Amino acid sequence: MPENKSKTQKKKAVVLVSGGLDSATTLAIANQDGYECYALSFDYGQRHRCELDAAARVAKQLGAVEHRCFTLDLAQFGGSALTDKNINVPKQASDGIPVTYVPARNTVFLSIALAWAETLGAFDIFIGVNAVDYSGYPDCRPEYIEAYQRMATLATKTGVEGHAITIHSPLLHLSKSMIIKRGLALGVDYQQTISCYDPAENGLACGRCEACQLRREGFEQAGVSDPTKYITT
Amino acid sequence: MPENKSKTQKKKAVVLVSGGLDSATTLAIANQDGYECYALSFDYGQRHRCELDAAARVAKQLGAVEHRCFTLDLAQFGGSALTDKNINVPKQASDGIPVTYVPARNTVFLSIALAWAETLGAFDIFIGVNAVDYSGYPDCRPEYIEAYQRMATLATKTGVEGHAITIHSPLLHLSKSMIIKRGLALGVDYQQTISCYDPAENGLACGRCEACQLRREGFEQAGVSDPTKYITT
Repeated sequence: MPENKSKTQKKKAVVLVSGGLDSATTLAIANQDGYECYALSFDYGQRHRCELDAAARVAKQLGAVEHRCFTLDLAQFGGSALTDKNINVPKQASDGIPVTYVPARNTVFLSIALAWAETLGAFDIFIGVNAVDYSGYPDCRPEYIEAYQRMATLATKTGVEGHAITIHSPLLHLSKSMIIKRGLALGVDYQQTISCYDPAENGLACGRCEACQLRREGFEQAGVSDPTKYITT
Repeated sequence: MPENKSKTQKKKAVVLVSGGLDSATTLAIANQDGYECYALSFDYGQRHRCELDAAARVAKQLGAVEHRCFTLDLAQFGGSALTDKNINVPKQASDGIPVTYVPARNTVFLSIALAWAETLGAFDIFIGVNAVDYSGYPDCRPEYIEAYQRMATLATKTGVEGHAITIHSPLLHLSKSMIIKRGLALGVDYQQTISCYDPAENGLACGRCEACQLRREGFEQAGVSDPTKYITT
């Protein structure tokens, strides 16, 4: 990937990278915008832990200067199909907020990103939340991001001193197909990413959970061949 | 401690308990207010790790139904005298935000508390922040707590469904001496608590860091004998 500026001139950004389609695209956008990217993933007790290998591949492919995996045992609290093996991942969309919702997950992730950004001297955080083709999680909505931004400015030394850390969510209002087109134009290799909430042990996507459905429809609507390897077809 | 209500009738609350004077008082207040208290501490890489033993003693003495210590390596980021052994804890107050500030600490702690509260079915979180006799940390101010409250309501399933989780900060506008008087009236044993940022290995308080100074002055102003064991006098 060509560098627009020399390393010393680049501004630093912390980019949340889960290993999925959205966060890979977000990392590519931050890179394109000229940031020196510090990729941050979380080993939080998720059942789809193989996404962490995907995150490492994505961070490398898209030129992150560092990829940090932060360990944080949210599974001890349970309460979500993604962290509690006694709750099955549903294979179809439901009304309301689904059982795959992990309590306060984005709030926890953004808070760790905030801590890292402040110590790095980074004034920008990127998160790939999307409020169009999404699972209905409350912490993916524009009003949530705005409230987080306001809180973060008041929370930090850097914010109080007049250098607020900006939360960027460049995918917020894009459809899944628009995200895919944007990412492909930026050179994202979606075969390296994993969106599935309930993959097989060998890493193949189930093809039926809500994350797989949204991903499949996105590729269809974008008119692009889906590179994902599914268990079912 | 007498119980006002039977256990089945009590509302649950998550209470942040560091092991210091303020959080012990906060736990006593939550207890007095009739909550079934779930005490939450953090092993975050702090140099004053002996506060965790104090937190366990305090949780037990004040009748918390559970004490959970959540591990979270904020020290990997450094950037604070409390988590980076290469930065000394200052022995006198400084202008502005001191080097003992830990980037985004209360934001991270409240976020984990939010996750736990939501899975417990608790609609109340207590935090012992204080904006009178304090070190000037941005995440101890009323405007920060208000902004966190707003964000938390938008972040969570429970908030979206009309049952917002309330952040209580009962010490926010109290002086240290008022906090001490309140706690003593509620039966807090301050000898069990540790406020020092830089204690000796045997747990004795340094007597000189800002936390020790604020604590000492608080006992003096309250006209109460200070039960703290200091290295220096």
